[in-house]
Amino acid sequence: MIRSRHPVFASRRRAILSALAALPVLFAFPALAQTVATDPLPSWRDTASKKAIVTFVERVTTQGSPDLVPQAERIATFDNDGTLWAEQPIYFQLAFALDRVKALAPLHPEWKDQEPFASLLKGDLNGALAGGEAAIFDIVTVTHSGMTTDEFETIVSDWITTAKHPVTKRLYSEMVYQPMLEVLAYLRANGFKTFIVSGGGIDFMRVFANRVYGIPPEQTIGSSGKLGFELRDDKPILMKLPALNFNDDTTGKPVSIQLHIGRRPIAAFGNSDGDLQMLEWARGGGGVRFALLVHHTDSEREWAYDRSSHIGRLDKALDVAQAKGWTVVDMKADWKTIFPFGNK
Amino acid sequence: MIRSRHPVFASRRRAILSALAALPVLFAFPALAQTVATDPLPSWRDTASKKAIVTFVERVTTQGSPDLVPQAERIATFDNDGTLWAEQPIYFQLAFALDRVKALAPLHPEWKDQEPFASLLKGDLNGALAGGEAAIFDIVTVTHSGMTTDEFETIVSDWITTAKHPVTKRLYSEMVYQPMLEVLAYLRANGFKTFIVSGGGIDFMRVFANRVYGIPPEQTIGSSGKLGFELRDDKPILMKLPALNFNDDTTGKPVSIQLHIGRRPIAAFGNSDGDLQMLEWARGGGGVRFALLVHHTDSEREWAYDRSSHIGRLDKALDVAQAKGWTVVDMKADWKTIFPFGNK
Repeated sequence: MIRSRHPVFASRRRAILSALAALPVLFAFPALAQTVATDPLPSWRDTASKKAIVTFVERVTTQGSPDLVPQAERIATFDNDGTLWAEQPIYFQLAFALDRVKALAPLHPEWKDQEPFASLLKGDLNGALAGGEAAIFDIVTVTHSGMTTDEFETIVSDWITTAKHPVTKRLYSEMVYQPMLEVLAYLRANGFKTFIVSGGGIDFMRVFANRVYGIPPEQTIGSSGKLGFELRDDKPILMKLPALNFNDDTTGKPVSIQLHIGRRPIAAFGNSDGDLQMLEWARGGGGVRFALLVHHTDSEREWAYDRSSHIGRLDKALDVAQAKGWTVVDMKADWKTIFPFGNK
Repeated sequence: MIRSRHPVFASRRRAILSALAALPVLFAFPALAQTVATDPLPSWRDTASKKAIVTFVERVTTQGSPDLVPQAERIATFDNDGTLWAEQPIYFQLAFALDRVKALAPLHPEWKDQEPFASLLKGDLNGALAGGEAAIFDIVTVTHSGMTTDEFETIVSDWITTAKHPVTKRLYSEMVYQPMLEVLAYLRANGFKTFIVSGGGIDFMRVFANRVYGIPPEQTIGSSGKLGFELRDDKPILMKLPALNFNDDTTGKPVSIQLHIGRRPIAAFGNSDGDLQMLEWARGGGGVRFALLVHHTDSEREWAYDRSSHIGRLDKALDVAQAKGWTVVDMKADWKTIFPFGNK
C-alpha cells in the first residue's frame, strides 16, 4: 500500500507500535503508583530498621490496637545535627559562626592579635579551637549576640540561602537526610507532633526548620543565650545577650522537653551520646515506646564515625542501644538514598 | 360544661392555653437559636470591647482582607491569673502552696518555730508574707521541689479536683472567666494557636490547662524551677530542684515567648502590669495587632481592684493601654456572665 510507505503513515505505524509496546507499562503503572503511594519510607531498604519504625507507628495509631496512643500524646522528638542533617566536617552552625567571624573581621582590627580570632582568620581552625570551650564561647558570643532577634534571623537567613558545604558544594539546608524527612512526614501523617530537640542554637535552627523539615518555631527546641527585652524609641526589641541561657545537650534534653513540651515523647531519634538521655526519657514512660539511633557507617555516600569521633561521638549510647534493643540505623545498609540530591 | 369544671380538663385547658402562649416563643426560637449559634461571644455585651475583638479576628482571617495573616502566624498569648481565672483573695497557686504546707506540717515539726511556716500554720498569712520574697521562696521551695515531675503532677491533680475557693466554695478550676473561654474557642475556631504565658508555675498550670482551657502542655508557658535528670534504678526521672529557673513575668514574658514560641504573637491578653511587656511585644510587630487588658471593675460579681492592689496591680499598663488605644475590658459593663456557674 502506498499509504504504508508514506512517511506520515510510517510515522503513524511507529506511533501505534510504540503505544502497543507501552501497554504493559500502562497496565503495570497503577500497581506501581499504588506501591509508591503506600510505602511511607521509600528511601529505606526493607531491613529491620524500617520494619521497626512501621511496626511502632502501626501499634500506637491503629484503631482497636491495645497499644493505641491518643493523638495529643503522639510526641516525637528529633536531634538535629547528625540525625536530620549532616554534621561533618564541622557542625554547620560552627561553619556559620566562622563565616560570620570573617564577615565581621573588618570591624575588629584587634582580632588579628587576639585568639581564637587570629587563628581563625588565618584559616587555622584547629589552632582556634585549641582554646577549648573558652574559645568556642568567644566565637559564639561575637557571632550570636549583640544584635536583636530580628537582626539575627536576617543574618542566618542570608547565610543559609547562600553558604555552601565545603565537600558537596550544596547549600547546607540541602544536606538533610532524605530517609529522615520521610520519617517526619510519616509520623505527622499518623497524627504525631514532631519536635526538634537539639544542642544547636534555637534561634539559628528556627530560621530554616519550618521550610526544610516542616517543623514550626514553636516545636523547635535548642540551646539558647539570654535575651533582654527593651523599648528602643518606643519599639520593643529582644537583644541577644552574651550569656548562655541553656545548653540543650545530654541531661539538658529531657529537661528542655519537660520545659517546652511538658509531655514525655513516645518516640525519640538521635545519633550521638548527647542524645542518650533523651532516648532514655522517651523509653522510660509506660506503654509502647520507640528509640532510634542513626549510626554513621557510610564513608562513601556520607561519613563513617562513632566511638572516637570529636563530632557526634556515639559510644556509650551505642552500648545502651544494643543492650536495650533500641533501633540502630546502619546508614550504609538501611538507607537507599542519603541526601535529596544523592550522595556526598 | 361539666368537663370544663372537672379538674383534669381544667388542667388540660391550662395546658392548651400554655401551649398557645408558648407559640410565639416557638416561632421565635429558630431565629434565636441562629443568633446564639453565630454569636461567638455570647457572654459579652455588645460594647466596644466585643466589637474590637470581632473586628480584629475578621480583619486577620477573612480571605481577601488586606490584613489577612497566614494561619501558622496566628499566635495569641494569654496571661492566666486575673485574665483566664480569678486571683482573689490570693493567687490560687499560693492557696495550693499553703494547703501543701499544712499537709506536710506533720513531717516537719521544726516548722512550728520557723518562719514563714510558724505563722502560716497559725493561719496568719500576713505574718508569714511579712518575710517578703524570701518567705515566698521558702514556701514555694518546700511545696514545689524535692519530688519528681510525675509526683508533683499527681499532687496538683489531687488538689485541683478537691480544693475549694474560700468565698465561692467552688473548685478553683471552676473560677475561670466564661467570656475568656469564649475568646479562646473563638480564636481557635479561626485558626489561632492559643498559648498561656503566665507568671504562674508551668508544671502547676499544665495539670489543668488542657482540660479547663483547651490549651495543651506544649502551649502552656510559665515560671519554672530547675530540673535535674537522673536514672533511679535505671528508671529516668526529672527531679524538681529548689532553685528558680525562670520568672515569667514583666520583661520575662517576651523572653519566654521568644524561647518557647519563636514567633511574635499577633494578639495578647492580660490584666496587670506584669503583662505590659507582653502586650507591647505583640503590638510591636508589623500589620494588624491586638492587645487587651481585663480591668477588674465588678466588686459584686467578681472583685474590683487596679492601681493600688497587691495582687494583679494594674497601674502603668492601664495608662499605656489608654494612651495607645488598646482594648480595656470593663468587666462590670462588658461581661454578661463572669464564671460558668454565675457570679462570686
